[in-house]
Amino acid sequence: MRSGEYSTTIEVPESSAVAKGKAPLMAAVVHQEQAGWKRGVSIMDFILRLGAIVAALAAASVMGTSDETLPFFTQFFQFQASYDDLPTFQFFVIAMAIVAGYLVLSLPLSIVSIVRPHAAGPRLLLLILDTVALTLNTSAGAAAAAIVYLAHNGNSNTNWLAICQQFGDFCQKVSGAVVASFISVVAFIFLILLSALAIRKP
Amino acid sequence: MRSGEYSTTIEVPESSAVAKGKAPLMAAVVHQEQAGWKRGVSIMDFILRLGAIVAALAAASVMGTSDETLPFFTQFFQFQASYDDLPTFQFFVIAMAIVAGYLVLSLPLSIVSIVRPHAAGPRLLLLILDTVALTLNTSAGAAAAAIVYLAHNGNSNTNWLAICQQFGDFCQKVSGAVVASFISVVAFIFLILLSALAIRKP
Repeated sequence: MRSGEYSTTIEVPESSAVAKGKAPLMAAVVHQEQAGWKRGVSIMDFILRLGAIVAALAAASVMGTSDETLPFFTQFFQFQASYDDLPTFQFFVIAMAIVAGYLVLSLPLSIVSIVRPHAAGPRLLLLILDTVALTLNTSAGAAAAAIVYLAHNGNSNTNWLAICQQFGDFCQKVSGAVVASFISVVAFIFLILLSALAIRKP
Repeated sequence: MRSGEYSTTIEVPESSAVAKGKAPLMAAVVHQEQAGWKRGVSIMDFILRLGAIVAALAAASVMGTSDETLPFFTQFFQFQASYDDLPTFQFFVIAMAIVAGYLVLSLPLSIVSIVRPHAAGPRLLLLILDTVALTLNTSAGAAAAAIVYLAHNGNSNTNWLAICQQFGDFCQKVSGAVVASFISVVAFIFLILLSALAIRKP
């Protein structure tokens, strides 16, 4: 009877030891799976970032090189349009250059979160910086879009005349730059979404 | 010697049982502490949202009621400026109304995350919707700011004349609306930051 008592009391720790042995094992498997999933998210993040760099650089450079000189001129005056003429376009070039520079500098952080999928710090930092960059990018794109709209259509109520009849090539280049900046805005929204999804689970 | 062996093997499960009894207790305490911290974040989220609603509504309504009729007129023409005259300002009013509406509708979700601090779903949804609303809000504010700048300063290169000398009150109201919209942009950035911080820890 006593030995039977002992055997039962010994069995309990044994089974609990087995359960203890299994629990960390299963936890490790789940951990591993989550690591794979998070690594996949990080790789998508990296690729999206490369795409956003291309879009931001294209926007800045197309706007920066947009000037057009008309083939006719008077004795005292040559008709020329350049992004320098409008302060909004200058802001656009500077802002998009800053955004592109930030994106290049954020690549190492993105690589860190590929190598260490469970580190929440780099992702959180990226999410916050991405939000600020998104705001800068959107404001540059929207302000330039408002001016481009005015250049295309003019406004009769305020007597602002459309200039795109005269400077067609200039207007086309500027419109292209605005479109590129909005592509980079969409990329930023997806980047923030990815970061949030990856941060959610520990 | 044998009984000594037994006594040691029995001691082990006993101590492990004590450790097991303690571990969930401490985990519960940590859980409780995190719940308090997360609830605090959610309450700040709620208050920030109320502030953003006020700013967005102020922006939409100030812009929407901005029209000015000059006290002199000719036989055929009365000089009048209103937000209707510029498509960008119409977009501003619509966008800020949508943002204010979204903010009001997001209050219940914010309350849910006060009541249930550990639910990650509502926070994630809020973060994503906030990002989209931030983009809309920023684009409306930046586009209106570009036009307001033009109305104040004009542009000699494109022969767009400043209209604020004539319509001073109109310009002041419009500028106020733009400032209010940027206050709501800042509130959104902080809302996203708070959501990200709260999502990070499970």
